[in-house]
Amino acid sequence: MKKNILYAQSGGVTPVINASACAVIETARENRTRIGKVYGAKDGIIGALREELIDTSKERKEDIAALKHTPGGAFGSCRFKLKSLEDSKREYERLVDVLRAHNIGYFFYNGGGDSADTAYKVSQISETLDFPVQCIGIPKTIDNDLPVTDNCPGFGSVAKYVAVSIMEASLDVESMASSSTRVFILEVMGRHAGWIAAAGGLACREKGDPPHIILFPEIPFRQQAFLKKVRDSVETYGYCSIVVSEGVRDSSGKFLSDSGSRDAFGHAQLGGVAPVVAELVKSRLGYKYHWAVSDYLQRSARHIASETDLDQAYSVGQAAVEFALAGKNGVMPVIKRLSDDPYKWTIAEAKLSQVANREKMMPKRFISKDGFGITPSAKKYLAPLIRGEAYPPYEDDGLPAYVRLKRELVAKKLPPFKV
Amino acid sequence: MKKNILYAQSGGVTPVINASACAVIETARENRTRIGKVYGAKDGIIGALREELIDTSKERKEDIAALKHTPGGAFGSCRFKLKSLEDSKREYERLVDVLRAHNIGYFFYNGGGDSADTAYKVSQISETLDFPVQCIGIPKTIDNDLPVTDNCPGFGSVAKYVAVSIMEASLDVESMASSSTRVFILEVMGRHAGWIAAAGGLACREKGDPPHIILFPEIPFRQQAFLKKVRDSVETYGYCSIVVSEGVRDSSGKFLSDSGSRDAFGHAQLGGVAPVVAELVKSRLGYKYHWAVSDYLQRSARHIASETDLDQAYSVGQAAVEFALAGKNGVMPVIKRLSDDPYKWTIAEAKLSQVANREKMMPKRFISKDGFGITPSAKKYLAPLIRGEAYPPYEDDGLPAYVRLKRELVAKKLPPFKV
Repeated sequence: MKKNILYAQSGGVTPVINASACAVIETARENRTRIGKVYGAKDGIIGALREELIDTSKERKEDIAALKHTPGGAFGSCRFKLKSLEDSKREYERLVDVLRAHNIGYFFYNGGGDSADTAYKVSQISETLDFPVQCIGIPKTIDNDLPVTDNCPGFGSVAKYVAVSIMEASLDVESMASSSTRVFILEVMGRHAGWIAAAGGLACREKGDPPHIILFPEIPFRQQAFLKKVRDSVETYGYCSIVVSEGVRDSSGKFLSDSGSRDAFGHAQLGGVAPVVAELVKSRLGYKYHWAVSDYLQRSARHIASETDLDQAYSVGQAAVEFALAGKNGVMPVIKRLSDDPYKWTIAEAKLSQVANREKMMPKRFISKDGFGITPSAKKYLAPLIRGEAYPPYEDDGLPAYVRLKRELVAKKLPPFKV
Repeated sequence: MKKNILYAQSGGVTPVINASACAVIETARENRTRIGKVYGAKDGIIGALREELIDTSKERKEDIAALKHTPGGAFGSCRFKLKSLEDSKREYERLVDVLRAHNIGYFFYNGGGDSADTAYKVSQISETLDFPVQCIGIPKTIDNDLPVTDNCPGFGSVAKYVAVSIMEASLDVESMASSSTRVFILEVMGRHAGWIAAAGGLACREKGDPPHIILFPEIPFRQQAFLKKVRDSVETYGYCSIVVSEGVRDSSGKFLSDSGSRDAFGHAQLGGVAPVVAELVKSRLGYKYHWAVSDYLQRSARHIASETDLDQAYSVGQAAVEFALAGKNGVMPVIKRLSDDPYKWTIAEAKLSQVANREKMMPKRFISKDGFGITPSAKKYLAPLIRGEAYPPYEDDGLPAYVRLKRELVAKKLPPFKV
C-alpha cells in the first residue's frame, strides 16, 4: 500500500521555504503510482502532534504552483523544539501514533539544525515503535548556518535583499550628506553568525562604495576603532553607510542591544541595535543619522528573491521526494558547490546526524583584517547566491499574486493531545 | 542667444526623482536648437549658491537614460531653506548672480512645498534684478502633501513598497503566530500627513487581510482602543499586523517617539515609534512582537517602484521643459486625475504661489470611523498610484545597474560665497 508524506515547516520562515513545499507536492504528484498524499502539518510540528494535517490533495494545481512565489510559511511554522528521546518521550510517541494513524511513510522536516535533530530522532523512535518512517530533512534557514551544505535555501534571497537595500539607501544618504544625514545604519538579522551582515558587503563593487562598515557578531565591538572608521568615511566619502548585525556584542560578550525576552528555544530575542549605534555616532561625532531595522521585511521579501536561491529551494524539496523514493532515511539533500565561476552546484546527500545541532560559523578569512568588511574570498563565496531575479507575478492592483491555501484538515482519528 | 537650464533637487529624495532629472535632460537635448545646456546644481540649492554646477552635457546618453531607474538624488540634494526675500536677500542676490554668470534662463526646482516657495521668490527677485529667469517647479515628495496636484511623484513608489512589505511581513508573522510572534509593527514615514501609512491599507484586499491596524498622525493615539483592537485581531485572525506612521501623537499633541533633534527646516527628526508601540503591546497584552523601521529603505527602494509613479515623475520633468519653451514662469506641472477606473491622468499647470508652503492633509473621509483603517474612497484614490512594476535592469552580479554620474563641474566665474 502506498504511503503518505507528512511535510512540516519549522522555525523562522524564509522568502522561499514555500518553494520547497511546492517542490515536494509537485514531485509527489508526479509519482502518484508510488506515493499517496502529501499532508502539511498545520503550524509545524505542533500541528503534527495535534493531528492537524492539511490535505494538500484538496488544493488546486495552480495554487500549489503559486507556492513557488509566495513568502511566509503556507502551512504555518512554529518555534517548538523536541528535546531528547527521554525528555520528550510523550511527544515522540504521539508523533509516531499520528504517523501510523495516517499511513505516513515519509516525514519531511523543512528547517534548520534543530529540525534536523528532531527528524533524526523521529526516524530512530519510529523504528523502536515498529512503525519505521523515512525521515528526511529539507534545509532552510536565512542564517546560512547549517553545516555540510555549501549554503542554505533562504539565505540567498535575504542576502540579495540586504545588498540591494543598503545600495539603495546609501544612494539616498549620499544625496543628503552635504547638509543633512551623514550616517545611515541598517540593522539585519543574524544572532551568532554574520552571514547576512556580510552579504551587505556585496553592494561594494569598488573601493569607496557602501557599505563602509559592517559590524559582525563574530567581532567584539570596539568603540574607538568604530568611531574612527565612521569619521574617516565621512571625511573621505562625505557619508558613512553601515550594516550592523543584530548579534553584535561588546568585549564582555553582552549584546549591544538585548530586549531581554527569549524565544521558545531559549535564544535571546534581539532587535534595536541600530538606534544604539546611531546614538553613539551622534553623541561622539555629532553626525546626523538615520537608521532602519529590516526585521521580518528581509526574510519575507519574496519580491526581490534571488533566482539562484529559488532554484535551490525548489531542488532540495524535489530531492527530498527522490530520496524518499530511493528508500533513504535520516538524510538531508544539501547543496554542493562545484565551481565558483561559472557558478555550478548540485544536490548531494548528508546524514541528519551530521547536520543536527551544529552551527556553521563564518570562516575568519571572510572578514577583513580591520574587522569592518568582507574579503575577496567572502565575495567569491557569496556572490553567486544572489544572482538572478525571480519576481513573483503581480495582480492588476499592483500587488504580488501571493496564494493562500485552503488548508483543509484531514479528519482526526486519535484522541486529543495537549501540546 | 540660447539660455541654459539650471536643475536642482531639494529636500528628501525619492525612488524616482532622478526620472524627473532624466526627463529634463532628455527633453532639453531634444530641443537643442532652442535650449543650451542643462546644469545640475551640486547638492541642491547649496551648490547653486556655491556656483557648483554639474555640466550634464559631459554625461553619456546611456548614463542619462539610466537616471530613470536610479534612486537617490544623482546631483545631490539638501535641506536648506531660503527665507523671505528680506531675510535671505544675500542668498537670493547671489543666486541671480550665478544664473546671470552662466546664462541661465530657466531655473527648475525639483522639490516640495518649500522649494516651490523658493522657486517663486527667485522668479520675483530675478525680475527686480533685471535678469528675468523662468522659474518652474517640478513636484516631488514621498509625503504626497503638495496641494493642487492630485498626487506627488515619489509617493506612489513608496506606497507600493509599504503595501508590498506589510503584505509580505504579515504572511511571515501569520506563519509564526501559533507559537511565537503575534504582533508585527512596521513604522513608515509621514510627519504630519498619513498618506504613506494609509498606503499600507492597500495590502488589505479582503476583510481580515493585514494590516489590521493603521496608526495615523491625523488621529491622536488612544491607548485603550488600540490595545482592544490588537487583542481582537489576535483573537480573530491569530495575529495582528500594524502600520504606524512616525508622526503619531498622543492626545496632548506630543509625538509618541521624538528623538529630540531637528532638521534644517526646524522639523522634529523622528524615528523609533515602532519599538514604543511594541513595548506597549508586550507589557499590556503579553504578546510577542517583531517590529521594523523602514526609514530610508522605503524612499530609495527603486527595485519595487510603481510604474505609474515612474511615468508621472518622467512626465513632470518633460513638462517642465515644455513649459519653459512655452515661455511660462512661476508655474509647476502637476498631475490631474481624469478618472479613477480606468485610471487616467494628464499634466496640468499650477501656479507656484498656489503650491508654496501649503501641506495637503489627508481628507477625513479617507480614514475609517474607528480611526484604524482606510475607507473605500481612500482605496479608490490610492490604488492606481501603485500599479505596474518598473524594475531596474540588473547586472550579472545580481545587483541593480544603478548609475553614478561623472558630475564634472563647470568652471567658476564668480568669487567664492559662504553658504
